[in-house]
Amino acid sequence: MTSPFPFLAIILEVAIIALFGLFVGDEQDQNNYQQPNSTKSTAVDGFLELYPLFQDVHVMIFVGFGFLMTFLKKYGFSSVGINLLIAALGLQWGTLVQGFLHSRGEKIHVGIKNMINADFSTATVLISFGAVLGKISPCQMLIMTIIEIAVFAANEHLVTEVFMASDIGASMTIHAFGAYFGLAVAGVLYRPGLRRGHDNNESMYHSDLFAMIGTLFLWIFWPSFNSALAEAGDKQHWAIVNTYFSLAACVLTAYAFSSLVGHRGKLDMPLFATKLRIHDTCGVHSLHGLPGVIGGLAGIGAVALEVSNRSTPAMQAAALGSSIGTAVVGGLITGLILKIPICGQPPDENCFDDSVFWEVPRWREQDVRFHEHDGHNQLEPEF
Amino acid sequence: MTSPFPFLAIILEVAIIALFGLFVGDEQDQNNYQQPNSTKSTAVDGFLELYPLFQDVHVMIFVGFGFLMTFLKKYGFSSVGINLLIAALGLQWGTLVQGFLHSRGEKIHVGIKNMINADFSTATVLISFGAVLGKISPCQMLIMTIIEIAVFAANEHLVTEVFMASDIGASMTIHAFGAYFGLAVAGVLYRPGLRRGHDNNESMYHSDLFAMIGTLFLWIFWPSFNSALAEAGDKQHWAIVNTYFSLAACVLTAYAFSSLVGHRGKLDMPLFATKLRIHDTCGVHSLHGLPGVIGGLAGIGAVALEVSNRSTPAMQAAALGSSIGTAVVGGLITGLILKIPICGQPPDENCFDDSVFWEVPRWREQDVRFHEHDGHNQLEPEF
Repeated sequence: MTSPFPFLAIILEVAIIALFGLFVGDEQDQNNYQQPNSTKSTAVDGFLELYPLFQDVHVMIFVGFGFLMTFLKKYGFSSVGINLLIAALGLQWGTLVQGFLHSRGEKIHVGIKNMINADFSTATVLISFGAVLGKISPCQMLIMTIIEIAVFAANEHLVTEVFMASDIGASMTIHAFGAYFGLAVAGVLYRPGLRRGHDNNESMYHSDLFAMIGTLFLWIFWPSFNSALAEAGDKQHWAIVNTYFSLAACVLTAYAFSSLVGHRGKLDMPLFATKLRIHDTCGVHSLHGLPGVIGGLAGIGAVALEVSNRSTPAMQAAALGSSIGTAVVGGLITGLILKIPICGQPPDENCFDDSVFWEVPRWREQDVRFHEHDGHNQLEPEF
Repeated sequence: MTSPFPFLAIILEVAIIALFGLFVGDEQDQNNYQQPNSTKSTAVDGFLELYPLFQDVHVMIFVGFGFLMTFLKKYGFSSVGINLLIAALGLQWGTLVQGFLHSRGEKIHVGIKNMINADFSTATVLISFGAVLGKISPCQMLIMTIIEIAVFAANEHLVTEVFMASDIGASMTIHAFGAYFGLAVAGVLYRPGLRRGHDNNESMYHSDLFAMIGTLFLWIFWPSFNSALAEAGDKQHWAIVNTYFSLAACVLTAYAFSSLVGHRGKLDMPLFATKLRIHDTCGVHSLHGLPGVIGGLAGIGAVALEVSNRSTPAMQAAALGSSIGTAVVGGLITGLILKIPICGQPPDENCFDDSVFWEVPRWREQDVRFHEHDGHNQLEPEF
């Protein structure tokens, strides 16, 4: 059977190019709009001022998320490769959807803030990707990207424009939303056949090391992620400084607890790589879901203490409820759509294996062990 | 026989330090020259404004190109290591050669633009390196770097100062030039013994994944590469935005076509890793040569449509001809020089193998094969 993937990808790209042609205009106006008194030169300075923060976020999206998910021993090509595919589609689609919601019928103007927001919108899908990693086809991911980013943009609009809520570090709109959307999809696509685990659903020495590349780039650039769209000045400054030191403090704490609960005080490669669960390959619930909810609750508390804020505790609570609610409902519906057989979902025995979707070199390290144990040496181990 | 490599490297470094002492002056003057009314603070702002874009290009040169070429299963140390060597020599030599051509007898002033240009000049050699990857010694690469950057700088001067040509994204001066220079060198160094392929000239699972690190960093920072030296303001802004969205659109298209032409709709690790050819290890002809020529032809068309430009279609055509012509002639002469036996070219059987030039750890994944065949299993394969 011919895979529907190439046709869907081309149709989506042609549609996006057509929509860009129709709805995207000149950026210059936007900068003038944002800074009414600015000369042309200042407008351009504004672009270059945030451009380095955009590039940090860009590295997180493509290298950070991509390599974070390479911990599975036979699923590295898919982790990095499908991550690139989702993000490339997502940033184009996110620019359009967020643009439609904010432009109020006018042309969409692409400035540096749209580019950062577009990268952010892809982060949501990449978090959800962690929950279904290894159990879903590229074609299914294209469909999930299109739906999830539309729902994300609608919820974000609700949270920031209607509830006027403050969403520090995008705890609710990105982390909680992405996690619960992904978990809802994974729930609908539940595979009873994988309840007792799967041979390929484990890491190996080198794949854990590859995952550390992703982990480190996410860690390094987190201050940029949390501050890129903060209000210029003091707030942006504190978002950077607070994130920087929190991250450092978290490392010591995480190492301490890993050693405390670990076998004979040994350290374990962090979190996601060890707590593999059938439903949630990458452990997105503990990595994004719960922290996102805690961030949302902290937001309610912070607003309650600070009267000057334009939001109220009730509005903050509504924003948290909306983020989780739209995520779960959107995820359930998406899961049902992805069950349509044409989407090419891999069978249980081919889960967590690149070779279903990729040409892989003759030898992977993993395969050697296999043949050694069987005593079959007809194929030469090639690494 | 003692390798001439350490002596050549030390002689080159001593010569470069001496030339810097003689010809390089204070940076402050240049900024004052460029912005006659600027205070010291503006001059420094100008430096720091482009510094993040410089660093993006810097990551592309050292991580991007370096890891892109790690796809060969036994040649990772050389790919990353010789890449570092070429780029470190090239950026010093490029600063001097480009400085001589632009300073018109005065001292060379090193500002942020010189540093970006110096990194660009090394990109040319790194592209050519792709064509001879695995078949050339570090000593040969030092000689090639010195000659190629001198010819590159002369051609670039001709293209931008004499023909006044517009060279968007350095299509002609870097991509086409680098590709055809490398192919000309590879042609002269042709090895009939490798016509039927070579055991080591293939990738493996993890080496392909390492190559993805390079690929992603090149992809992420391409907007910075294309815009770093664009005219500040609108042109720079559009260079960034257009590159950003083009790259995203290209991902979907490339995946679609890879799946369409691939075996049973499977995806294949992009381009470079699969089309290995004896003459052109890294496939630089399709990766840089043809796209560079297409960019050059597009430049002729763009100038023909826009009368306000300072160049003419004939001048653009001359620039394209000059870029390809100097590359081929320069490459052929360089190839002949590299044939001198003292340069330490590796014999056919040692091609694509790190162990000719590097101490390698006792065990590479590859070596397991030998011991299994020998029936020695006393050491467990550790991957």
